[in-house]
Amino acid sequence: MCRWMAWFGQPVLIEELLFNSPHGIVDQSLHSRMGAETTNGDGFGLGWYGAGEGPAVYHSVAPAWSDANLRELAAHVESPVFLAHVRAAIGSPVQQPNCHPFRRGNVLFVHNGFINEMAKLRRDLMLAVDPELFAEIHGSTDTEVVFNLALTHGLEQDPIAALEKTIGLIEAVADEHGVQSAVQGTFGVSNGESLWAVRYATLDRPRSLFTSADVTAIKHLYPENERFQSAAADDRMIVSEPFSDLPGVWHEVPESTAVTVGHGGALEERPFRPAA
Amino acid sequence: MCRWMAWFGQPVLIEELLFNSPHGIVDQSLHSRMGAETTNGDGFGLGWYGAGEGPAVYHSVAPAWSDANLRELAAHVESPVFLAHVRAAIGSPVQQPNCHPFRRGNVLFVHNGFINEMAKLRRDLMLAVDPELFAEIHGSTDTEVVFNLALTHGLEQDPIAALEKTIGLIEAVADEHGVQSAVQGTFGVSNGESLWAVRYATLDRPRSLFTSADVTAIKHLYPENERFQSAAADDRMIVSEPFSDLPGVWHEVPESTAVTVGHGGALEERPFRPAA
Amino acid sequence: MCRWMAWFGQPVLIEELLFNSPHGIVDQSLHSRMGAETTNGDGFGLGWYGAGEGPAVYHSVAPAWSDANLRELAAHVESPVFLAHVRAAIGSPVQQPNCHPFRRGNVLFVHNGFINEMAKLRRDLMLAVDPELFAEIHGSTDTEVVFNLALTHGLEQDPIAALEKTIGLIEAVADEHGVQSAVQGTFGVSNGESLWAVRYATLDRPRSLFTSADVTAIKHLYPENERFQSAAADDRMIVSEPFSDLPGVWHEVPESTAVTVGHGGALEERPFRPAA
Amino acid sequence: MCRWMAWFGQPVLIEELLFNSPHGIVDQSLHSRMGAETTNGDGFGLGWYGAGEGPAVYHSVAPAWSDANLRELAAHVESPVFLAHVRAAIGSPVQQPNCHPFRRGNVLFVHNGFINEMAKLRRDLMLAVDPELFAEIHGSTDTEVVFNLALTHGLEQDPIAALEKTIGLIEAVADEHGVQSAVQGTFGVSNGESLWAVRYATLDRPRSLFTSADVTAIKHLYPENERFQSAAADDRMIVSEPFSDLPGVWHEVPESTAVTVGHGGALEERPFRPAA
Repeated sequence: MCRWMAWFGQPVLIEELLFNSPHGIVDQSLHSRMGAETTNGDGFGLGWYGAGEGPAVYHSVAPAWSDANLRELAAHVESPVFLAHVRAAIGSPVQQPNCHPFRRGNVLFVHNGFINEMAKLRRDLMLAVDPELFAEIHGSTDTEVVFNLALTHGLEQDPIAALEKTIGLIEAVADEHGVQSAVQGTFGVSNGESLWAVRYATLDRPRSLFTSADVTAIKHLYPENERFQSAAADDRMIVSEPFSDLPGVWHEVPESTAVTVGHGGALEERPFRPAA
Repeated sequence: MCRWMAWFGQPVLIEELLFNSPHGIVDQSLHSRMGAETTNGDGFGLGWYGAGEGPAVYHSVAPAWSDANLRELAAHVESPVFLAHVRAAIGSPVQQPNCHPFRRGNVLFVHNGFINEMAKLRRDLMLAVDPELFAEIHGSTDTEVVFNLALTHGLEQDPIAALEKTIGLIEAVADEHGVQSAVQGTFGVSNGESLWAVRYATLDRPRSLFTSADVTAIKHLYPENERFQSAAADDRMIVSEPFSDLPGVWHEVPESTAVTVGHGGALEERPFRPAA
Repeated sequence: MCRWMAWFGQPVLIEELLFNSPHGIVDQSLHSRMGAETTNGDGFGLGWYGAGEGPAVYHSVAPAWSDANLRELAAHVESPVFLAHVRAAIGSPVQQPNCHPFRRGNVLFVHNGFINEMAKLRRDLMLAVDPELFAEIHGSTDTEVVFNLALTHGLEQDPIAALEKTIGLIEAVADEHGVQSAVQGTFGVSNGESLWAVRYATLDRPRSLFTSADVTAIKHLYPENERFQSAAADDRMIVSEPFSDLPGVWHEVPESTAVTVGHGGALEERPFRPAA
Repeated sequence: MCRWMAWFGQPVLIEELLFNSPHGIVDQSLHSRMGAETTNGDGFGLGWYGAGEGPAVYHSVAPAWSDANLRELAAHVESPVFLAHVRAAIGSPVQQPNCHPFRRGNVLFVHNGFINEMAKLRRDLMLAVDPELFAEIHGSTDTEVVFNLALTHGLEQDPIAALEKTIGLIEAVADEHGVQSAVQGTFGVSNGESLWAVRYATLDRPRSLFTSADVTAIKHLYPENERFQSAAADDRMIVSEPFSDLPGVWHEVPESTAVTVGHGGALEERPFRPAA
């Protein structure tokens, strides 16, 4: 179990979202309300687009709430597009290569949920990864395998279609092994130009996922932030769990749905259907 | 806020107490029930008496629940006397020198609670530390200052008296600075031959503290552990928070009370009165 | 590049070998004389046989020379058989699952050297691992793959034969991929009852490997250690690099040679021939 | 012993200086040529001026050469003024609060060298720190005490004068305790607007210190970097140890000298005389 959030809009100091929010992602690392676990203290990660080539990633095995470097980064890095993730490990070790977001080239990838009985499926799924990518898998999470499968199926070209093929493949492999309820979770992807998210579970109710509702949502969340007040037209957030209970601010993403956020903050939803 | 536990008795594999207990200290690091904070994930420490000279200490900034090395140590070190501590930091950084137990020579020391407005008192309290000990203070917790004050006042000779002088001194310094409610907490001390604990608060209800009730308590806690079943006569535990709800197993230490556990598991209680 | 050492003999405090030796393994982490790199500061590990079930492992991403916990463990754990390893990473991340010794059941495994162009071979080699073991690979070193291949080929039953099959397999896979000079290194294995070591390279001069020469060697190394003086008959060391220049104390293991140390410190050498 | 570097000039990606230099500071962490120790692997730190309020600091206990996050930051943060420091600990623990640069408000501070027999002097020196600053000392290095003494004596107003008073005070306290050769080292300070450095030792030859020689020095160091080629007029570097052997590129700062770098890269040297 984990929690993640994505920002897409005007450049902001990352701390505005991570630390200066009423129930932001760092607070969720200690006190998640809607997650399968209340504590998400098994490392975290931050990926952002800004200076330099491609996105940056910062991965730490410390809990997000106590990492002094995260506070420093958040207070001194501005970015128009970033993803943050707090982890609750389920089996795999707490090590930097197991922290999200995962990255390749321009793409960042986060996941909340799990592949059921991954140990049974791991070998077959890794064989389905493009051999060119195989040796790049440095960690031991299910998510890193999902990410590399998605890259194999075109994540850099068409993220939603790639995830539909990937999830379809995982469900097929799970079937062969007699594993039920193969996929559970939400996924977030960006290339710096757009932001995509998926909410899906093979069988059960998928993990929660929300988007900020519309142009006024961010303004309501940060009434004292002048920058947000003046020019929030393009700003969008996607979060595992709302930062507040403010009515009208959050929109729940329906089950089996893919979301695309593009320039100007435009948001599209469409059904997510794993491809056989 | 923190949680701690102490074992005094026959040599046991440390994991029996840390991991194989229904609501042991590692479980309390994630889900404390009686603490001021539910999560105690800001590092931990283990101090034990066994092979080699003096007690060993293992300090880690990782949460106790995810530290692979702690599982290894606990599964492969046997000890007749050990203290474990899980930390919830309140202000000072998560760093190894801030982890309990603190040690000097044969003495181990743990604390749950705090010195109120420590930043105001820190300088005066450190000036009251024996100058020989001053440069040995490597961390920034209130506890390390309390420990060195107690060493200054004879912790190695008479722990309870030394703590009475130390707490009295802290309360006097706090008074001078207009700080109310100076001391809050429970303290644990051992030299490998005896185990001492104190429950005290200047003003409020002190943090919780319990001892295992009598010779049968450990047997009830570990019905499937053959060693405990056969020979638990000397075994005693002191804990911030009971490991179970079993009736009759735990005895609450009264407020303003000092406890001494000696050979044969004998337990004495006496009033704890800070010395002016 | 790395350095390792193994102790087999009477129970000793681990610090005697790690810290109280003139040019012990921890000193080699800072100043290796015979290694491909002078600094081996990318984590380390210690595996020992003693209390509890099976061997214990302690893995740390800190350099061996500065890890406070290693000093504590070494000063307070006694063991008759242990292996220590200091790492100089070549490509794979500095993370705990990449630290040696690797363990399964009763077996510990260390390696100094590398598989050439591992990224090219990784997928084929992992496919050759017993599918039951596949999901147990948590790190990204070449050594962990070698270890699991060796387990696949009977490391727990006949370590030298299993390594001959494993190295033969790696050389064959390398040939298929046009990779020259596939295997370089020394390997150490124990099950607590015996100690095995191999020195081998496909093409070049293999990494250095030495054994303590005979019954008097340990006595010469530790003239002030009473325990070693009185009863060193069974004691043997195997090291990447001698702890001292004392003449007669160290015996260089010839190239393409396997060494077995058994009860009573008896040492056998035989040719090591990879099996096609 | 340590190594440090400072950049003052046009905004650059930090990696240009840290990683893309022939013998940059990260290379010096593994292979210092002029330092008292060849390995500076006991943590490092980076402080920079850029987005957000005041300077940012990133502190890590990992060696600079293996910290994945440092590579990320360096590759994705641009700054016109930054200081980097690699540490070789001499006594005090490897922990984040012991990493340089130290910061207060707008000021960053680094040090290479040591206060002789600090343990003897620590108490008296800490008593000389402004009581308001006393409780802010979280680590256990001599440098943090020097920094807080310098703040006490006006580091934020007149850095060179404050350091002259501070060093004078330390030498006086050392005299009282019969400690010879009290101060050894080089110091670097910035407030984002200017950069100051001092090279001084009470008795012996002080640690090495160099500035980039003139407007063409940076161009010579980075012949393939277009940005440096076109507009390096203002750029200055101060380093413990030259990045290259290029003749004419580096100017050695004389002993007992203070350096000031201001807008436009103007460099002034003046004698440094500790104030009694």
